[in-house]
Amino acid sequence: MAVRIDLNLSLDGVAAPADQSPENPMGADWGRLVEAYIGTRTFRERVLHDTTGEGTTGIDDRYATAYFDAVGAEIMGAGMFGLHAFPDDPHWRGWWGEEPPFRVPVLVLTHRERPAIDFANGTRFEFLAATPEDALARAREHASGGDIRVGGGASVARDFLRAGLVDRVHVAITPIVLGRGVRLWDDLRALERNYTVTSEVAESGVIHVTFAR
Amino acid sequence: MAVRIDLNLSLDGVAAPADQSPENPMGADWGRLVEAYIGTRTFRERVLHDTTGEGTTGIDDRYATAYFDAVGAEIMGAGMFGLHAFPDDPHWRGWWGEEPPFRVPVLVLTHRERPAIDFANGTRFEFLAATPEDALARAREHASGGDIRVGGGASVARDFLRAGLVDRVHVAITPIVLGRGVRLWDDLRALERNYTVTSEVAESGVIHVTFAR
Repeated sequence: MAVRIDLNLSLDGVAAPADQSPENPMGADWGRLVEAYIGTRTFRERVLHDTTGEGTTGIDDRYATAYFDAVGAEIMGAGMFGLHAFPDDPHWRGWWGEEPPFRVPVLVLTHRERPAIDFANGTRFEFLAATPEDALARAREHASGGDIRVGGGASVARDFLRAGLVDRVHVAITPIVLGRGVRLWDDLRALERNYTVTSEVAESGVIHVTFAR
Repeated sequence: MAVRIDLNLSLDGVAAPADQSPENPMGADWGRLVEAYIGTRTFRERVLHDTTGEGTTGIDDRYATAYFDAVGAEIMGAGMFGLHAFPDDPHWRGWWGEEPPFRVPVLVLTHRERPAIDFANGTRFEFLAATPEDALARAREHASGGDIRVGGGASVARDFLRAGLVDRVHVAITPIVLGRGVRLWDDLRALERNYTVTSEVAESGVIHVTFAR
């Protein structure tokens, strides 16, 4: 039951681009940040429901496959679910459409209580206010022995890292400089001390860095 | 006569660690940031004057060799020379000892005029107040057709990058998180637009990223 984080970063460490809007809920630069990832066969199958078999199958795809592998429950911030966009609409079901790619229980950290939302593919969003430790205990109950992923955004990921709760961190660094947005590494001085760090460069030019306990 | 920058960065983009002191003129974390670089055979020969042939000879050493190759003149900030440490001592000859590794004319950017300093190995430090463009014009006169390196520190490198004056940027990223110090990437949004970016991972775990025109 490892606790895992996977994030896409720019070379300057931005995980959450600035300039979020209804048209670009993840920020105007999001497409450039995840271009290699959304080009993989796994992303196309799992998230876009594209069954043509198209997409890259190299190193980026190996990480994309591992992303979904063995995850039993997910934890994410309210922004990643999409709560900040329509905070007062009780019928809003999030950014993820009717087939969210998670297919497991997802705990959304928020101080606004609202009923859980179930989707036909096994995804269930539950909303709670909790510390990282408490959210993790709750996620373990839901994970059926699988891993727990802290999905993001950047500040939620940082809270879990600072609390020393994460067993594996994988960042896919796209070599672009965004210059604004939320940076992952702030206030994580000496993070590497508790991990073995390995890196490899994908065919796309994306640099995959993994911190593992 | 390419204009080049080579810097060591942490994963969070810090090029100049904090906590500089007379005992640690480059900052308390400098040793960890450049550990792989100072372990190379080239660094040991060129900077430490170690002729035993010890040191690594892999990918890091290839970059270390290229670092010194074909450079005809160097530009650096006052801090990199060491002016900030003893600003009022006219006899202070900098951090670099009696055999500075440059062996070419070095322009030190400072508003404090002082006489040039010559060393037996061909290194000559000249002190001037100049814009990046003017410093570069002056360096070209001294470079005998060789390349010009903007050595640093981070804020000087950024000034030249922002002015669009740099043909090749090589950063050696050590996968550690420093959390404080001067970050290279600030205010360089979309730097990659004018370059082709390539990356490779050395045996040491250091990630070498090159921006080339």
